[in-house]
Amino acid sequence: MDPLHLSRHISSQFNEEIEQVRNHVMAMGGLIEQQLNNALVAIASCDADKAQQVIDNDIQVNEWETRIDHECTRIIAKRQPAASDLRLVMTILKTIADLERIGDETRRIAKVALESFNTEQQDLLVNLESMGRHVGIMLHDVLDAFARMDLQSAYSVYREDKNVDREYEAITRQLMTYMMEDPSSIPKVMNVMWSVRSLERIGDRCKNVAEYIVFFVKGKIVRDSSDMEQQYTVDD
Amino acid sequence: MDPLHLSRHISSQFNEEIEQVRNHVMAMGGLIEQQLNNALVAIASCDADKAQQVIDNDIQVNEWETRIDHECTRIIAKRQPAASDLRLVMTILKTIADLERIGDETRRIAKVALESFNTEQQDLLVNLESMGRHVGIMLHDVLDAFARMDLQSAYSVYREDKNVDREYEAITRQLMTYMMEDPSSIPKVMNVMWSVRSLERIGDRCKNVAEYIVFFVKGKIVRDSSDMEQQYTVDD
Repeated sequence: MDPLHLSRHISSQFNEEIEQVRNHVMAMGGLIEQQLNNALVAIASCDADKAQQVIDNDIQVNEWETRIDHECTRIIAKRQPAASDLRLVMTILKTIADLERIGDETRRIAKVALESFNTEQQDLLVNLESMGRHVGIMLHDVLDAFARMDLQSAYSVYREDKNVDREYEAITRQLMTYMMEDPSSIPKVMNVMWSVRSLERIGDRCKNVAEYIVFFVKGKIVRDSSDMEQQYTVDD
Repeated sequence: MDPLHLSRHISSQFNEEIEQVRNHVMAMGGLIEQQLNNALVAIASCDADKAQQVIDNDIQVNEWETRIDHECTRIIAKRQPAASDLRLVMTILKTIADLERIGDETRRIAKVALESFNTEQQDLLVNLESMGRHVGIMLHDVLDAFARMDLQSAYSVYREDKNVDREYEAITRQLMTYMMEDPSSIPKVMNVMWSVRSLERIGDRCKNVAEYIVFFVKGKIVRDSSDMEQQYTVDD
């Protein structure tokens, strides 16, 4: 990962330490991407072993969060960063909290994959897979935006969440129709429903990370899309 | 609120500032308690005005988070706290992030109250109200534990989440049976289902805050219940 060109540097130790932390965030992000991908493959192929592996690996995601949290707190205490350096540490802390929750949602999806689906119900999963790919790309893009602290990519992830929400609404309506037509399918369909909901939440969390990137680059907190438009357009 | 007896004080300014921030967290918490209560009353009494009011007030919750976040960052930059003082600031930052998300879930519940229910479907809401009261008590208790940084209360909130999860599972099963018996009710029942899910998530977030309190008091991150038992029993 290219080092960030921070405007102010308290010390070269700060730079070295923060670069290491940023590499750890990327490693954590890479693990979560892999977990999400494996959870979706496990559902698509009814692979209980793979699903169990995702569930077991979630502890590694949690360990990364704990480790990076500790590193950030140590940097604050030892290097006493100010201004944009402090903002970067705060951005990292917020980002890893959301990444850890994305890990939790991924574990929930993997749990659904442990339920068996019969062949007629496989068609239920088509939309789940498609939305999964969509959210997977969003996660990849926001991690990429984080690596480069890139405002434009962050903004595009922020906007993409609206499309994920629309996809979520459409799939939810479709699943409800399915349940109404075949009430005996309700327990199975509800499992798919929870997974779709988890994917929607992962989208929300990617949007949160995009907000943190804007917070770091611009020094302002954004809370809604008009705010984000303003941040993005005023002086870029 | 009684001031905390912190083991180390960097400066009296730090103490004054952090006390103010803690008061702000309690004000934010009080607002969220009120929001949750109003959302549940709105559902129980089919009161669309009250529901709309909860939705509108969520912006105040967000403003509190932004304000307290800013205050904490300023304290870190200006006072350069170390050890338990820094840990307290970090605990506050994590706590307000979860409180803000509890606000989001509350807004989601209020949105359900905007949907109309007819009298036969009122019985659907009985369990929702009961679980709402349960989670409301948990929120109240964890805010109280936060005000006193009390390990024992935090531990009891942590344990309570298991009961909320059990209640959630039971209600979910009951709602699924309801849908299977009367498929035409599915869209309405799904709205109740989402609210019950939101309540379950609020319980999770109260548990998170309980973990942060333990992190502050003990200086250790807890991740599961055996960990929490250990934290609580080893030297208390």
